[in-house]
Amino acid sequence: MNRLPMNVPAPGLPARVRIHEVGARDGLQNEKTAVPTEVKAEFIHRLAAAGLTTIEATSFVHPKWVPQLADAEELFPQLADVTADLPVLVPNERGLDRALALGATRIAVFGSATETFASRNLNRTVAESLAMFEPVVARAKEGEAHVRGYLSMCFGDPWEGPVPVHQVVSVAKALLDLGCDELSLGDTIGVATPGHVQALLAALNEAGVTTDRIGVHFHDTYGQALSNTLAALQHGVSTVDASAGGLGGCPYAKSATGNLATEDLVWMLDGLGIETGVDLAALTATSVWMAEQLGRPSPSRTVRALSHKE
Amino acid sequence: MNRLPMNVPAPGLPARVRIHEVGARDGLQNEKTAVPTEVKAEFIHRLAAAGLTTIEATSFVHPKWVPQLADAEELFPQLADVTADLPVLVPNERGLDRALALGATRIAVFGSATETFASRNLNRTVAESLAMFEPVVARAKEGEAHVRGYLSMCFGDPWEGPVPVHQVVSVAKALLDLGCDELSLGDTIGVATPGHVQALLAALNEAGVTTDRIGVHFHDTYGQALSNTLAALQHGVSTVDASAGGLGGCPYAKSATGNLATEDLVWMLDGLGIETGVDLAALTATSVWMAEQLGRPSPSRTVRALSHKE
Repeated sequence: MNRLPMNVPAPGLPARVRIHEVGARDGLQNEKTAVPTEVKAEFIHRLAAAGLTTIEATSFVHPKWVPQLADAEELFPQLADVTADLPVLVPNERGLDRALALGATRIAVFGSATETFASRNLNRTVAESLAMFEPVVARAKEGEAHVRGYLSMCFGDPWEGPVPVHQVVSVAKALLDLGCDELSLGDTIGVATPGHVQALLAALNEAGVTTDRIGVHFHDTYGQALSNTLAALQHGVSTVDASAGGLGGCPYAKSATGNLATEDLVWMLDGLGIETGVDLAALTATSVWMAEQLGRPSPSRTVRALSHKE
Repeated sequence: MNRLPMNVPAPGLPARVRIHEVGARDGLQNEKTAVPTEVKAEFIHRLAAAGLTTIEATSFVHPKWVPQLADAEELFPQLADVTADLPVLVPNERGLDRALALGATRIAVFGSATETFASRNLNRTVAESLAMFEPVVARAKEGEAHVRGYLSMCFGDPWEGPVPVHQVVSVAKALLDLGCDELSLGDTIGVATPGHVQALLAALNEAGVTTDRIGVHFHDTYGQALSNTLAALQHGVSTVDASAGGLGGCPYAKSATGNLATEDLVWMLDGLGIETGVDLAALTATSVWMAEQLGRPSPSRTVRALSHKE
C-alpha cells in the first residue's frame, strides 16, 4: 500500500516551511502524569533525528504553575548534543535568568491578545504583561538570544468571543516594538477559519509587520487547523507551529483535541512539494513511541493511519 | 462561551455550497451492528430539519453485499414527507427497478478510477462497469431521474498507489458521456493534498468538464479532508460531500477515520460566510443522538467540542 501522498505543487506557496515543533513544551505541559526527564530528552532527540530543526524544549515558568516542566534544569543539559534550535519559554526575568544560565540562545514569551486571558493566565492586564516582558526581551537581546513572542487568543477568546483584528494587531506591534524577532499567532481555542486568518495577516502587513516575521499556531479543536494553515501559506507564511502526534490540548475544552499534529501538517506539505526536512516515517514512529509512554493513542489522523496494522 | 466562528469571508469562493450529506448511506453502510429502520428514518428527518437539502438515503445494492442497507424498501416510504432531495445508490438495473418502483427521483452509480478497485469492489473491469451503468443511466434519464456518478480512488489507490490525473479524467468523461448529470470525485483512501486536488479539477476543465458538474468527496484518513475542500472551493467547486458526525470509514484502513464530518465543514463555511442553510447546533445534536444509537462517540472534532460539557 502506498503510504505517501503524490507530490503535486500548487502555485503561490512557499518553497520551504520551517516547522516550529511544540510537542515537548506546549504538548506535554498539560499532561497530568509526570513524564520522566529521560523520556523528554529521548523525545527531543528523536524529533531532531526525524529532521525537525526548531524544537521548543521546555518552559522556565515557576514549577508550581507547570509541574510537568519543573525539570527544565535537569532536561536542558541533556540536550547539549542536539543540533536543532531549542527555544524555551520564559515567563519573566527569573525564568530568563534560569534559561540563560543554562546557555539557552532562543527564548519565547507568552502574551495574550485579550484582557480576560491575560488576567486569567498571567494575572495581569495586557499592558502590565507587556511591561513585564520588556526587561525580559531587552536582556535576552543583549545576550544575543533570539526572541519569539507568542500571542494567544488571536481569533476568539472563550470569555470575550470573537477578537477584533485591530486588537490583535495592536498587541502584536507592541511585542515587536519590545524587540521580539518573530511572532506566533495563536488560535488558542481553535475557532479560526481561513478568511479570518487571511484578514489578520493582511491587517498585520498593513500595520508594517512583514509576513516573514509571522508564524501561525493553530489548534484543531473544530478540525480547522490544517485548512487555516493552508490559508496562511497562501498568504506567504512559512513558519508553522505544530505538535508531534497532536500532543497537548486546550485546558478550556478538555474533550477537544489540541495542537495541529505535525504529521498531518507534514503530509500536506509533502504532497504540496514544500520542503520541511522532516522524515514522516521517523516522526510517526516517534509519536507512536511517545503515545506508548503516555499510555494513550495519538489523536493525529496521520499517525493513526500510518501506524495501523493492516 | 462563544460557540460560533467569526464570519470573515475570503475572496474568490462560492457564495453558496450545496452539501451532499452521505451519512445515512455511505456512513452507515459499513456499520456492523444493524441500525433499526426507524432510527435511520429519524436520522434522515433530523438531518433535513437541520437544513440539509440533499441527503443520500440508502442503497439498492443486493442485501448480501450491504446487509446494513437491506431495508431500503422499508425505509424509503417512511421518508415521503422529507422535502430534501433523497438520492439513492443503485449498482445495476435490478437496483434501479427497485428504486424507481418506490418513486426515487435521484439516483447515483458508483464507479472506480482504477482497475484494481473496480475488480475488487464491482468484480468488473472499469470498461465492464461502465457498460453495466449504461442502461442504468439511460433508463434513469428516461424516467427523468437526476443521476450522480461517483468516481472512487481519484487520487490514490491502496493497491496501485498514486492515480494519474489523465486516468481519472478519462473515466469521468465516460460517466458524463453515459448521461450522468454530476460527478462526485472521491478520495476514497484520503491521500489527496491541495495541489493534487486543483490539478485534477484543472485537467477536468481542460477536458471540457465544467466545475458546476463536479462535487468533491474527501476522506479524513490523514486529516486532509477540510484543506482539500478549501482548495476545491478556491477552484470554484460548490458541491461538497460530507457525513454527519463523520460517520463511516474506509474498510481498507479500519483504524482510520472516514468521511469529512459535515459539522467540521459547516464550521469552516459558516466562518467564511458561505451559505449552506444548515443549522450547526441542530446538526450537532443530530450527530450526538446518532452516536448514542451506535454506542460510540462521533469522530468529528466539531461535534466533540460543541457537545462537550464544560
